[in-house]
Parts: sequence; structure tokens; C-alpha cells
Amino acid sequence: MKEKVVLAYSGGLDTSVIIPWLKENYDYDVIAVCINVGQDAELEGLEERALSMGVSKVYVENVKDEFMREYVFPMIQSGAIYESKYYLGTSIARAVIAKTLVNVALKEGAVAICHGCTGKGNDQIRFELGIAALAPHLKVIAPWRIWDISSREEEIEYLEKRGLPVPMKKEDSYSRDRNMWHISHEGLELEDPWNAPNYETLLKLGVSPEQAPDKATTITLTFNQGIPTHLNGEAMEPSALLEKLNELGGANGIGIEDIVENRVVGMKSRGVYETPGGTILYKAHEELEHLTLDRETYRYKQEIALEFADLIYNGKWFTPLREALQAFVTSTQQVVTGEVKLKLYKGNVIPQGSSSPFSLYSEALASFTTGDLYNHKDADGFIRLYGLPLRVRALKAAENHK
Amino acid sequence: MKEKVVLAYSGGLDTSVIIPWLKENYDYDVIAVCINVGQDAELEGLEERALSMGVSKVYVENVKDEFMREYVFPMIQSGAIYESKYYLGTSIARAVIAKTLVNVALKEGAVAICHGCTGKGNDQIRFELGIAALAPHLKVIAPWRIWDISSREEEIEYLEKRGLPVPMKKEDSYSRDRNMWHISHEGLELEDPWNAPNYETLLKLGVSPEQAPDKATTITLTFNQGIPTHLNGEAMEPSALLEKLNELGGANGIGIEDIVENRVVGMKSRGVYETPGGTILYKAHEELEHLTLDRETYRYKQEIALEFADLIYNGKWFTPLREALQAFVTSTQQVVTGEVKLKLYKGNVIPQGSSSPFSLYSEALASFTTGDLYNHKDADGFIRLYGLPLRVRALKAAENHK
Amino acid sequence: MKEKVVLAYSGGLDTSVIIPWLKENYDYDVIAVCINVGQDAELEGLEERALSMGVSKVYVENVKDEFMREYVFPMIQSGAIYESKYYLGTSIARAVIAKTLVNVALKEGAVAICHGCTGKGNDQIRFELGIAALAPHLKVIAPWRIWDISSREEEIEYLEKRGLPVPMKKEDSYSRDRNMWHISHEGLELEDPWNAPNYETLLKLGVSPEQAPDKATTITLTFNQGIPTHLNGEAMEPSALLEKLNELGGANGIGIEDIVENRVVGMKSRGVYETPGGTILYKAHEELEHLTLDRETYRYKQEIALEFADLIYNGKWFTPLREALQAFVTSTQQVVTGEVKLKLYKGNVIPQGSSSPFSLYSEALASFTTGDLYNHKDADGFIRLYGLPLRVRALKAAENHK
Amino acid sequence: MKEKVVLAYSGGLDTSVIIPWLKENYDYDVIAVCINVGQDAELEGLEERALSMGVSKVYVENVKDEFMREYVFPMIQSGAIYESKYYLGTSIARAVIAKTLVNVALKEGAVAICHGCTGKGNDQIRFELGIAALAPHLKVIAPWRIWDISSREEEIEYLEKRGLPVPMKKEDSYSRDRNMWHISHEGLELEDPWNAPNYETLLKLGVSPEQAPDKATTITLTFNQGIPTHLNGEAMEPSALLEKLNELGGANGIGIEDIVENRVVGMKSRGVYETPGGTILYKAHEELEHLTLDRETYRYKQEIALEFADLIYNGKWFTPLREALQAFVTSTQQVVTGEVKLKLYKGNVIPQGSSSPFSLYSEALASFTTGDLYNHKDADGFIRLYGLPLRVRALKAAENHK
Repeated sequence: MKEKVVLAYSGGLDTSVIIPWLKENYDYDVIAVCINVGQDAELEGLEERALSMGVSKVYVENVKDEFMREYVFPMIQSGAIYESKYYLGTSIARAVIAKTLVNVALKEGAVAICHGCTGKGNDQIRFELGIAALAPHLKVIAPWRIWDISSREEEIEYLEKRGLPVPMKKEDSYSRDRNMWHISHEGLELEDPWNAPNYETLLKLGVSPEQAPDKATTITLTFNQGIPTHLNGEAMEPSALLEKLNELGGANGIGIEDIVENRVVGMKSRGVYETPGGTILYKAHEELEHLTLDRETYRYKQEIALEFADLIYNGKWFTPLREALQAFVTSTQQVVTGEVKLKLYKGNVIPQGSSSPFSLYSEALASFTTGDLYNHKDADGFIRLYGLPLRVRALKAAENHK
Repeated sequence: MKEKVVLAYSGGLDTSVIIPWLKENYDYDVIAVCINVGQDAELEGLEERALSMGVSKVYVENVKDEFMREYVFPMIQSGAIYESKYYLGTSIARAVIAKTLVNVALKEGAVAICHGCTGKGNDQIRFELGIAALAPHLKVIAPWRIWDISSREEEIEYLEKRGLPVPMKKEDSYSRDRNMWHISHEGLELEDPWNAPNYETLLKLGVSPEQAPDKATTITLTFNQGIPTHLNGEAMEPSALLEKLNELGGANGIGIEDIVENRVVGMKSRGVYETPGGTILYKAHEELEHLTLDRETYRYKQEIALEFADLIYNGKWFTPLREALQAFVTSTQQVVTGEVKLKLYKGNVIPQGSSSPFSLYSEALASFTTGDLYNHKDADGFIRLYGLPLRVRALKAAENHK
Repeated sequence: MKEKVVLAYSGGLDTSVIIPWLKENYDYDVIAVCINVGQDAELEGLEERALSMGVSKVYVENVKDEFMREYVFPMIQSGAIYESKYYLGTSIARAVIAKTLVNVALKEGAVAICHGCTGKGNDQIRFELGIAALAPHLKVIAPWRIWDISSREEEIEYLEKRGLPVPMKKEDSYSRDRNMWHISHEGLELEDPWNAPNYETLLKLGVSPEQAPDKATTITLTFNQGIPTHLNGEAMEPSALLEKLNELGGANGIGIEDIVENRVVGMKSRGVYETPGGTILYKAHEELEHLTLDRETYRYKQEIALEFADLIYNGKWFTPLREALQAFVTSTQQVVTGEVKLKLYKGNVIPQGSSSPFSLYSEALASFTTGDLYNHKDADGFIRLYGLPLRVRALKAAENHK
Repeated sequence: MKEKVVLAYSGGLDTSVIIPWLKENYDYDVIAVCINVGQDAELEGLEERALSMGVSKVYVENVKDEFMREYVFPMIQSGAIYESKYYLGTSIARAVIAKTLVNVALKEGAVAICHGCTGKGNDQIRFELGIAALAPHLKVIAPWRIWDISSREEEIEYLEKRGLPVPMKKEDSYSRDRNMWHISHEGLELEDPWNAPNYETLLKLGVSPEQAPDKATTITLTFNQGIPTHLNGEAMEPSALLEKLNELGGANGIGIEDIVENRVVGMKSRGVYETPGGTILYKAHEELEHLTLDRETYRYKQEIALEFADLIYNGKWFTPLREALQAFVTSTQQVVTGEVKLKLYKGNVIPQGSSSPFSLYSEALASFTTGDLYNHKDADGFIRLYGLPLRVRALKAAENHK
């Protein structure tokens, strides 16, 4: 019996070419694993296609709810955003995909995992660090770092030469990655940062603000300990909730980001991300944190969010540091419970009010008047001590100048 | 000759009441100082009014350009935003006002400075810390923490009783603070965080996204070492540039933030801020940083921005820590030079491309192909070492479980 | 029936004077609570003394093990040190004392808590913030901020006038605070930072390095998930373990720090701290973390330690941020298990080796040779990508200079 | 004319073998560059040796003062320590060495730089990142990642086969790196972290605490803006000052650290470092910062120090982030001027007092009494506001539990 290799298979051109290449270059049975993180449409007919290319077995793993609960929700809770703009859609999905690949590999007793990432991107790192952390004994095969194929055209030729079917070509050639949380676009006009993105042809999950309807949509989101549970008062499962928000957000031109970002491997790249539902969730969650977190927790959590984002981006989900940061975040979320109203309008997510049983806002305190809790005169002493170091320093400096 | 007190005078009701109160309760000559940080309209007839109230001298100090160059520009360069939303409009102005009050006090040989801030807000702290740092020997008089007046009505009565003129009442009673960088609104419906702001009556510097024109405006901003210098290719002085951007931003519904924030004095308050031009400047500056800063500098600067924002918000501008953080920021800005195109549309500031002689983006590097600088195979070694700690840990853990 | 006030009572002069003062100025029954955090010797005869001063009830609460388990251990795990030197002995004890005072107050239905801290120190803050967090309805009475007594002599006179016993005077007049974790010394020659401490008369828990024996003592400490459990292989209860280490550390001149520190209330003060056992525990714990924590966790934990120290020092133990930071720390400690050998010699704690089942050290990896896990050639790719941003920047700069 | 390669030459076995290897494998003229960062003794006869091995030219560059002024002093000012223990002796020297190699290469018009670092260490990274930043067009040759030689014995054989002289063998085989700031030791018994270091045979710059004299040495150090200038009142040049402190520190058993550290390349290694003079300078500098820095600057600088240490350790000296962090540090050092007395005794550096014209310590303020600057009663208001968020939260929580 042959040894087995698990292939992360999407049905696209790249991973299709890998099947015959693996069979020709390694003495392995190839097990194709397609992991559904929300790119449902792309999955049709996929099993047949894979078998027709010569794999010995196909897995189609629906991990959508696991993805939401164990990866996306902690990320929302953390507030992680990479380089001020990127909601980490591809990055976070790589973690659950790596986990699932490893699960299949262990179940099948495979000796290797193969992926179709190029040698210039972040995804190779995310997959391989995940595998290193979860199953360090598994070999990794990364054909793009091995073979001599160097273009789309050569891939097609490779398949045609062998009489194998070529997956349907897309009409355009942006390079894209899609899951239920987001879609990313790279290439074409985006390769020159001085160009504006061609939003008319580029967008997939919604429209641009200019194409969005003239009438706003108002929604209410409910959170329990930092986890979104209800939309407009109706309890919804994680993936159903996100899908509905993607629809609403996309229709209203929300969640489009155009970013020149720093990759892990050392160069800058430019992409456009659509995260319509995710953007709404982040903003709603933030509103509730403004209401319920005390000043110092809010402040420190901002720093934690920067680090959490780096870890996700860098492929370091399965690490002690991510677990420890998540423990911090989870602790802060005990009070992030309540409702947030939002108006969705042509690219804007406009807060319309929020409430929480753990709100730390007190109308009596914030208003002008003195009450039990606050005496204006207390401020005298406060400021005197708060400013004491400045006063001492200034006085000492004055003495020195005499 | 009497000792002198310098009064921070705005011409409004609060500071008008203070004049007779000071004269009745202290044996000082009162010198009214009105500091123009961009609230020009409010200054008309102000000198006469002050004299009619009994002050011995009036200063009207135009510090608009100093405000921009020495306070606002370093803030833009730093990227400081308080609690994710607030562009620090009131906070940063308090620094230059404190400085100017001290300058006048020193020039006049005054023994005290008096301000009209309440005992519950941040501004008292910002003024008094500024004074403590710059002229620690000066006494501070804060009537709101001393007198028994506790409402607008009592203030009016106080003036009427003495036959003094009552400054024109505003039509509404939001509590507002305005300067060239922003305007803030507090009070009325905003006091309940569950209420949406009544943007139709509230906004002063522009319109809401829904009221903005259907046609976008596209602009180009030029920066030199992190300082904005040109709009649409035309060199402009700092305050003229900001005023023009305020106009454009306001017209397009840009820069409106609704926030429940944590005050220094320990309670949450809720406000709406309009920062139309400032929001455009921040976003343009950020685009250029994405293009020109390396990954580690960008990342660390994000942390610095959090601290810089705190210092400004907390009234700690005149401190060694602010100076040291600013030295950090200045060092990073050497390369933040170039052009940014932006589309202003119904609340959105949409990047349309950016360029810089110091751009670190390399199309050749970012694209798929291997070149001199990058060999796909290098990633093998990189990932192997980058993931080594994870692999070692996993292997050790596996050994422990045997 | 009278309302009750709970008095934090130490038996010393300060808190003795407070008893008659409270009775004369308030219509309360006074309940004296003495909280034993390790200052056992000072407790003898304390109950009788308190009763003789007129209190209606005395509690002597031994919280030594609670103090160790719930306060000191998490602090050791965190690695918190204030301003590089201070092991937070007084600060951390204030938290458990505040908690215990509140417990008694709630049990007794008291309406107020009274403490003998001065208005210039940190301890008033630590007590009052603890009370605010745990029982915000309780009134706080801080006589030193109220009465006119302003010196030791006036205190004695106050008691003598009333025919009340004056607690035995100490021979010297350093101001000291003692618990099982440490003792602090302030005053006398220490008030001038240019003076060396007079260690011969000052030290209480041990000797100076110069007076320590010429022969070293070697010990082994065992930790389980960051908690010390065994000394020289023998399981010991927390307080017994610490007492033994205090003895060994004190005898060998260990854990003496002389520091000019920044108080919360805005001025610098100078003190000498003795933390003999604590210093040994911190250093042993750190050795184990060097062996078991990965690089990124270790690094981030250093930042967390700075914040954790601030929170303890500032009296913010009972806050969401402290809880969240502790959740982070706890998560990291899962692997901090193992043994550490240390040599104690004249002020030095010299590591003599450490081991852990979770050690990430691999002799094979660290040594020169290539093996399964590491190929020297991998470093080529690693360095090429790791240094890519520097190379790109330099090349771009070179282009700009052409 | 042949192209040239610049070889970082130490005169030791490794770099000696590289000379013939380079000549056999590349068509280059070899220029040996020996950079004196304080390892003076090792330099004797070095030029002759290099020429006898076949190099075409030898440079011996004394950069000791440059090393001190431009690298070591900023590091002292920053307070950078890697992983709590390591004073970065090897790391910081690599920066000046890389700079000097590049300088010679540019002057000679060389096309490549060759170094003798192994593929498992940090030094290869430090050299190559320095070169990438300063002269990205230069090729790097790292024989240990290329050739098949894999042991000391094979190196000797390699030379003997060619009839070339073999550099004198050292008596032991710790792997060492020495410069004026420190010496490092790896290998032998240190490879097992459970072993105590054999200090008797290992130490080179001094003795262990146990072997140090029974009588303490007291010194005074003077700093000007964070730079050490005088020892015992006598002005000294940087390198002379350090050499004298190395002598004093070494004699008194100071500055020995035994550490299991995390390398950049992903594994832990264990070493012993001697930094006698450096340890004294760090501690003296820290004393002065305690006296002169305000609380917030001190605190933030602690975080900066962590990052600064990482950058030095990781070979990222020639980066914008290091420059920006240094700008921060430089700004803080304006007041770090004054005198520090220290007692050196058997491994201990015991502060004996410090003074500064910029001291922020005020005896009047720190002491018990109320004065102009401080009124005990001010603390009432301070604590009330400082603790307000805790009180509000507790009250809200109590309401929720009703």
C-alpha cells in the first residue's frame, strides 16, 4: 500500500495541476481535501472533478460553524485589525483550514500535506506553521517552491499535454481568495498603487458606496459576552447571521478596504478586501465596548488587538501567545453584552444608539450637576496631585536656571 | 497697583459671569484673553463686550498658525486617535490656549490665571497641567469649583442683578466647543446613549452623509515629511489648507463621530464630534504611511499613537514623555512624502491611489515572478526557521505524552 | 444601637490614636480589625490593647495563606516588578487587607471603614480603591486627611492627655511596613538620596551581603504551573515555604533594594526594601520561564509584567484589567513546571541549573550540527526574507540618490 | 584584475580555513579585515598570519571609540537588556563590525563580503542584515552554509592537507566571543541546562563572587545626558573608562549571567556572559534615571527598552525603527546628568547614593508634612476621582444583582 499525501484542494487551476504533478513525482496516493469555509458556490461538482484528475479519495469538509465559533468570534472579540484596515479574512481562514487538513491527515495516516500556495505569499506560512504546531512529523510539499511552472499558461499547457480537464477559466484575472468572512482581490490595476481600484468590475460581495441605494437600512445587533447572537431581535446561528449581514452590508457598500500592506515575507503588496458583514460586526462590537469597558481595560485591549492581529496575520494561531492573549480578551468580554443600533448607508455604518446592562455610562455623573458620587471640588485635589510631577519638574528647572 | 489675573475669556455666558465675580471676590485687575484657535465668528465685538463688563485690558490672540504647526501637525504625524474615534479637537487646542494664557500672564506679570471650565470635565485638567508645567508659580482660579452658581439660569440672574449685559443666548443648548480643527457637541438627546444623535439640528461644520451631494469630489493632497503642503497641487498655508478641507469635508458628510468616551476624571460621557478636514488629513497621511513605512516601524508607531493620544487627551502636552514620543514620530516621518488622491463621497474618504519617492512598494517584488531580490525557494528556509519554535514545542509535547 | 465603623488596626501609635479620636468625633461603635499578613510578632497582646482603648470588638484575621495563594502567587507568575526594583511587598498586601476589611464590614453591617494612612502615600489609595470596588456604599474615614495632628509627638500627647496607654515606642524612627513578603524602610538618612543607607541599623529580615556567611547555601525549588511547591524536594505549604526562604535569603544578604521611586500621588520617595524569600522565588521562577516559554510569549509577558506591576502599585487589584492580565499570565504558566537549583551567596542568587518536562531547549538543536530539524542552508532563505525590507529600502534610497 | 571579496577575519581557525577555501572556490582576491572592538590581545601577529594564508591585503581597523560612542552609549541610554539578563555584548558589536566591513568593501570596490558565522546562530543574521541595509548590492558568502566541513577536526585537516599553518588551538573548547563590552561562553557543560557552569575554568574577564576580595570597592560615576564621563571625578575617554570598569567589575565578581535564551533562528541556546564594566554602567545609569525621570517617562521607556533590545539582538540596528526609538531615548536623556556612588562587592553593585541637578526628588514633598506644594486634603479629591470608575462599576453591578 502506498503512503498518502493530503492535498488542500480548491478545484481551481493551481490545485488541479498539482494532482498529476504529485502522482508523477511522488509515490503517494493523493487525498483531496476541500474545506468549505463559506465559498459554497465554488464547491459544485468538485468531488467528481477531483476524482477525474486521479485522486484516490475526496473529502469535502464543511467547517463554517467551527470557523465562526472558534476563530472568527475570538477575533471579533479581540478587535484585531491588521495595519489599521485589514479584517484578516484570508489569514484567519488559513488557521481552520490547516487544522482540518491535519485532522484528515491524521485520520488517514498520511505522511505529508501538500498545498498550492506560492512562495511569495503569506498563506504558505500560515499553513505550514499550523501544521508544524499540530502535527510536526508531517512533511509539507509546496509545489510552487519546487516545480518549474511559472505561469497560468504553463499550468494549462501542463494539463492539456496530459489530456486532463482544465478548470473553467475566470473572465478576469484578479487573484482572489474567498470565504464567508471576506473576499480579497489582488493584481491587474491594483499592482500600481497610484491607480484607483476599478470597483465596478472588481467587487463580488456588494456594490460601491456610489452604487448603493439612496435609502438607509437600520438594524439592531445583540451581543452576549462579545458574541453576536441576534439580528433585529431574532436569534441566529453564527453562519446564518454572518450571511445575512454580508447581504445587508454588501448591498449598502460597506466594508471595502484598499490597502498597501506589509507581508510576512518582507515585501509590500496591494489588495482590496470586501468584508461587509464583518465590518458591521466589528463596529457594533466596538460600540458596546465603548459603553461597557472601563478606560484602562479599553486602552490595554487596544494594544492586545495589535498583537492579536499580528499573530493571525503571521500564521501563529496555534501558539501559546495567541492562547494567552485570547484568555485576556475573553476575560474582558464578560460585560460586553447588550444591543447596538446601526444605520447602514452608502459605505457608512452609523451608530444609532447602544445599551447594556453593564453600561458604565451614568447620565447623572456625566451631566453638569454635583451629586453623591461627584463633587466638583474633588477636582481641585485631583488636579493638584495629577499635575504634581509637572509642577515639581518646572520648579526644579526654574531653580536650575537661577 | 493691584495684582492682575488673566482670564481665559470666550465672550460666552460662563466667562462673562466670571468677570464681575472675580472683581467682587478678589482684589485683582482682570485681563481678558481671548485666544483665536479658529472660532473667528465668535470673536466679533468681543473686545467691547469684555471692557463693558469691567476688565482692565483685553487681548485677542490669533494663534491659528502656531496651533497648526506646533500642535496639530505633530498630532497628525503621530496618528493619535483617542479611543478609536476621537481626533482630539478640543484636547489639542487646550494646549496652545494654556501656552498663550501663560505667555500673557508672564508678560503682564499676573499672579493668577482664571478659567471657566466646570469641575467635571477634562478641560480644567488640560489648562491646569499646562500652567503647572509652564509657570508653576501662577495661582489657578476655577470659579466653577468655588462658587455656588449651578445653572445657566443662575448665571443670567447673576448678570441681570448687576445690570450687566447678558451675552446672546444660543437657540439650542447643546454644549459645544469649537476651533479650526473641530467642533464638539454634548447634551440634550446625546445624554442617553440609546438615542441616535439628531444630526439635522446638531451639525455645524457640514451635513450628514445622507444630506451630502450625490456626486463625489476628488482631491489630491501632497505631504512633505508628514506635513500637508498642497491641495490639488497648490501650495497652501496650514490654516488655509485646513479651512478648505473643512469646507470640502463638511459638504460631503465627512468626519462625524458619535462616541461614548472615558474622561480623565473617571466617568463616561457621550459626544458628537465633527472633524471634516482633520479626518481627510488623517486618512491621507495614513495612506502615505502604508506606502512608505516598513512593517516594524508602522507597527510600533501604532502603539506610540495610542500613548500620544492619551497624553493629549489627559492634558500632558508639556511633558518630557510627549516630547520624547514626538521625537520618535518625527524620526519616522522623514519618508512620509508624496501624493494621495482621495474621493470624498457621502461620509466616505475613499483612497484613489498614492505615490511617494520613498515608496517601499515594488511591483516586481509583489508580483508572482521570481527575480533578483526574491527566489520562491528562499521561503522554504524562512518558514522552516520561522516555525521552528512551534515544531520544537509540538515535538516536546508529543514526547511528554508518550 | 450605634452605627459601626471598622478600623484597620495595627496596634501601633497611629491607629491607637484613631480609636479615641473616632469615638470623640463620630457616633460610631469602633470595631478594630487587625489583619495578619505575616507580621505575627507585632500581634501579641494586641486584642487587649485595642479593648483597653475603647473599641467594642476586635477581629484578628489570619489571611496569610489567602495572601500567598490569591495575591502573591499570581504576582510571582506575572513577574511584576515596579520600576525595575520593587517587589511590591506593601502594595500587594494592601489588596488582601482591603478585601478583609470589607468582609468584616459587611459581616458587621458597618457603615464606614477607617484607616491610618497619611495623605501623602500610596496606601490610602490602595485601601480606598479596594473599598470602592468591593463595597462602594461604605464611607471611608482617613483621619490623617482630617485632623490637625501632624507629628508623632502630638499623637503621644493626644493619648497622654486622655490617660490612654501609649504603644511602646520603637528605638529608631524609620517608617516601616512589614508583612510576610517584605519589609520596607523609609525616613532618617534615606531622605537624602545622596546618603547611603545605614544597613547596619536598618535591616530587619537579614543581613547585608558583607555580613553574610562566607559559605554559600544551595537549594532546589520545584514549581508546578508557576507555583512554588517544594523546597529541596520537600512539599511545603505556601507560608511555610516563604518563611523558610526568608530565613535562608535573609541570612545570605539577599533581596535588599534601595530605590527612589515614583508614588501614585505624584512625588518621588526613597525607601529600602527587604524581600529575601520573594527575591529567590522571582529568580527561580524566571529561570524556569527561560527554559519553557517560547520567545514571543516571553517577550509579550515582559510587557504584561510592567502593566501588572503598575496595577498592583496603584491599588487597582480589584479591576477588570487586573483580572484580564492575570488570565493572560495563567495561560502562559501551564508549562512553567520543573526544578531550579540556586546558590545563595552574599547577596547573589546564582542559578545552578534548571529542568522541566516542558523545556524547549534541545541540545541537538542548539549545538553546531545539522539534523532533522535544522539544516544550516535553511538560514539562507530565512535571512534573505528576514532582511528583505532592509534591502528594498536601501535599493529604493539608492535609486532616489541617483 | 580580479574582483575582490572582503573577509571578516579574526585570526582564529574558522576564518583561517575560509581563506584557502575562498581562493579555491571563487576567482576573487581576498581582503582580510580584522575589526578591533576590544579583543586587542587576539590581534598580535594577525596581519602576518593572514598574508601567509594568501590574502592580498589586510586591514586592521580599530573602531573601539566609534563602537562606544555610536553603539554602546545609545544602548546604555536605552536600558536595553535581552530577555531580562543579556547585555547584548555580541549583538551590538556585530553592528559596528558590519558597518566597518561595508566601509572597507566600498572603499576597495569589492563585490562580496564573506563571514565565518555558522548557519545556526544569530551572528550571520546581524552581519547580513547590516550589509543589506548599508550596501544591498554586495553579495554575501557564508561558507558554513555552503561547504561540507562540519567540525573543528575537519578544519584542521583542511589546512594541514594544504600545508597551511593551523592557528594555535585554545586549551578548552568553549565557544567564545569577546569584545571590550563583554565575553560570551557556550558549549561543554553549558549544553545541559541542568548543569551549573564551571566558573572556575570558564571565566575570562574576572572572578566569581566567591573568589572576589572580602573588601568592597566604592566608586563614583558621573553622567552627562546619559553618557558616562567621569570615574571617581576624573574625566575619561569612553574606552579607557570601560576598560577600567571591566577591571574593577571583573575583580569583584560582577556582571556574570547564565542564561537560556531564545535565538532569532528559533531555538534556545545556553550561554554565560561576562559584562563586568557594562553591568556597572547600566546600574549606575539606572540609578540616575530613578532620580531624574518622571513616572510616565520612566514607565514608557521600559517598554522602549524591550523593543530596543530586540532590534539589537535581531540584527536590526540599521533600520528606521531603531533610529526612531533612539530619538525617543535621546530626548529622555536631557536630564540624566549627575553622580552615582556604587559599592562593588562580591557580585553586588550596591547603590550608595546619587545626585543630579535635575533630580525630581524633593525631601520636603516626600516627607510627612504638608507644605505649599501638597496638602494632605488634596488626596481626598484625587482618590475620589481616581477610584470613580471602580465605584461606578461596582454600583452598576450591585444594581444588576438586585
